[in-house]
Amino acid sequence: MESTLYTINQKRLLQTLAVSSSIGPSKNGGLHRLALTEQDREMRDQLKKWFVEAGLSVRVDDFGNMYGRRTGKQEEGPVLAMGSHMDSQPSGGKFDGVLGVLTALEVIRTLNELGLETEYPIEIVNFTNEEGARFGPPMLGSGGIAEAFSKEYIYNIKDKEGTSFAEALRQIEYKGEEQNRLTNLLGFIELHIEQGPILAKENVDIGIVEGVQGMSWLNVEVKGESNHAGPTPMEDRKDALLSASKMISKINELHKEIKGLKTTVGQLDVYPNVPNVIPGSVSFSVDIRHEKDEVRKHAVERMKEQLSTMAFTNNADVVIQTTWNSDAVTFSNHMKEYMEQSAAARGYSSKRLFSGPGHDAKYIRHMAPAGMIFLPSQHGQSHNEKELTLEEDIEKGANVLLDVILKCTKQKIENIEVRNID
Amino acid sequence: MESTLYTINQKRLLQTLAVSSSIGPSKNGGLHRLALTEQDREMRDQLKKWFVEAGLSVRVDDFGNMYGRRTGKQEEGPVLAMGSHMDSQPSGGKFDGVLGVLTALEVIRTLNELGLETEYPIEIVNFTNEEGARFGPPMLGSGGIAEAFSKEYIYNIKDKEGTSFAEALRQIEYKGEEQNRLTNLLGFIELHIEQGPILAKENVDIGIVEGVQGMSWLNVEVKGESNHAGPTPMEDRKDALLSASKMISKINELHKEIKGLKTTVGQLDVYPNVPNVIPGSVSFSVDIRHEKDEVRKHAVERMKEQLSTMAFTNNADVVIQTTWNSDAVTFSNHMKEYMEQSAAARGYSSKRLFSGPGHDAKYIRHMAPAGMIFLPSQHGQSHNEKELTLEEDIEKGANVLLDVILKCTKQKIENIEVRNID
Repeated sequence: MESTLYTINQKRLLQTLAVSSSIGPSKNGGLHRLALTEQDREMRDQLKKWFVEAGLSVRVDDFGNMYGRRTGKQEEGPVLAMGSHMDSQPSGGKFDGVLGVLTALEVIRTLNELGLETEYPIEIVNFTNEEGARFGPPMLGSGGIAEAFSKEYIYNIKDKEGTSFAEALRQIEYKGEEQNRLTNLLGFIELHIEQGPILAKENVDIGIVEGVQGMSWLNVEVKGESNHAGPTPMEDRKDALLSASKMISKINELHKEIKGLKTTVGQLDVYPNVPNVIPGSVSFSVDIRHEKDEVRKHAVERMKEQLSTMAFTNNADVVIQTTWNSDAVTFSNHMKEYMEQSAAARGYSSKRLFSGPGHDAKYIRHMAPAGMIFLPSQHGQSHNEKELTLEEDIEKGANVLLDVILKCTKQKIENIEVRNID
Repeated sequence: MESTLYTINQKRLLQTLAVSSSIGPSKNGGLHRLALTEQDREMRDQLKKWFVEAGLSVRVDDFGNMYGRRTGKQEEGPVLAMGSHMDSQPSGGKFDGVLGVLTALEVIRTLNELGLETEYPIEIVNFTNEEGARFGPPMLGSGGIAEAFSKEYIYNIKDKEGTSFAEALRQIEYKGEEQNRLTNLLGFIELHIEQGPILAKENVDIGIVEGVQGMSWLNVEVKGESNHAGPTPMEDRKDALLSASKMISKINELHKEIKGLKTTVGQLDVYPNVPNVIPGSVSFSVDIRHEKDEVRKHAVERMKEQLSTMAFTNNADVVIQTTWNSDAVTFSNHMKEYMEQSAAARGYSSKRLFSGPGHDAKYIRHMAPAGMIFLPSQHGQSHNEKELTLEEDIEKGANVLLDVILKCTKQKIENIEVRNID
């Protein structure tokens, strides 16, 4: 690592974080800042101001991804990027995503203060709709520029009120140009909270992310028959919610059969959803994850089989659609080594671990070498207002990010590594 | 019965019904005309026009209940009322409630055409919010004037968007005066579709309603813990939807233990309801019905016990509230006899049966003698766009209603009967 260890300004970073926490606050101390809403616009306007104050040139691409660029000695050379996302879940936490963008900003402010010029330009990125809470699937901004989704597909995704992604982008005035997308990329680094209990439980300072689990999203539509609750005999009913309930129990049990599998039914809507009407149809989501792609694919097939059988025996119809698939990825080995070296040099403990959730870095990994730094999340809580990362851990994470950025801008990471890892 | 049998005008009745079906139509041939919405206002304006054209004096009370009054020889004498409701479920049927009001209108038009003056005045009533789909519980208009609910309670009930009943009444400009409520009542007759399969299955023309089942509504709130779907190990989860699903299966099985019991979970809302978040809380409704009040009350207690035990074993918290109770009622024996006599005189088949659903007549029963005529509903479907009552059955029902009205206006039904039946 660097012989000189520079240090970020913890106080300045926490003050900046406090401003973010005040934009779109939720009732119980978290955030309710869904992608492309008025709250998101307000946050973006503030971020733009910070970028300008830090001397960065600002641009926005056609998915609303925001970039702040700091020039390098080789201004035409490849770009080193870092960042994450500023949108939140409904009643989500203050740290998820936000830390990745604001520690990146603090790294730039530190470089400015030290008067350090880097070999290659550096860009901070704020990706659009990472959470997928308003527009599903998640990670549309990073997935868009990595060409995992077509522009047409993304633009036409609608929220629950029927507003399309493209309309929402226009409404908050963050629809930029396709030519502004991230390009000529040297590498990408994302700092993020763990969103799991391991680092906090084991008292580790820095998580070095091996890769990200693959995942699939299914949509299950169960059809029964709506009827009045009063007269319809129990034996004659085709209650879609009753059938769906049995399916949910079954889906939950699949991990007993397939080791390491995680299944979640997070979204469920009943129709017509009134107390005295037997539900005529129910639609629900299934989120399925596993570190091994072939195991996950097998689990999806097994689940489809089980649900079809259950629908048959419960006198209901079922239609199952796979709405999203994302294979597992492994991050850059060079970056993992740089992170480990930085942690060791600073006397921080570190640990390699896999990521359960997906992240923007997962898509950017297909464009260039990428790496992720995880910070401990107290009690492993996230997507929850109680989510908490300690101030000293934020400082440590930002210092490691600073070290890795300085290291990476000194040397090109072999691009060959992207397609051919380990 | 009458020695002369008069006949309603089927064509005119069906044309009037067709106009109703065109106001707030749903996609698949039903109605989506929730109480106190713009669609309801449009229907009310049309109904008012029809009342005026039929020479009726129109008034509206403080719950938005609409009345059309035809004078009698003894104008100060007690009033004979008939009617039902014009609001619908979301994607409900065209006949539910509507037939009770429009056959009443057809009866008045027939009396006008025949130049028949009655002993007592007759009023048609369109009760507000019978369905309870927008403002729960159901039957607020009839329950309000029967003083089953206080005015303050009803006015403060809010829909899902937070609009109160009182605000909604004002928005559609149907907030009338308390002095306009139904009063000095001789009796009340409601024609309605059966909303069950019995009459259609047994090929019976006219259902004579013995009484209405008692019912209770519960609200069950299940609390777990929201967390990210990716990293949280299956064993560490507190998934509120999984717990709720198991409870729903259990609730459904209670009828195997308690004979004649009907239980329905019709409404369920998940929070935060996004695919990659483990549900933190779920709230759902339970509708419980039985012909015998004491059995229903026992079932409610049993269910509360079972759900509390399940919450404990599933690592969740549960809060159960009874939001509404309504005891069983029995209708006027005199009216049942008049209906039977009318059907026999006209050569229609008839059958006595209990009502599963509640109806406005159930509340009005506490003010005066009341009766209900049921018409066959094909395949027993209701609260459903496929709901269907055949044209010939509608005609038969309207003729019986005409006969009973003529019979009742000739003689006061003993009011003593109200409190002391069978």
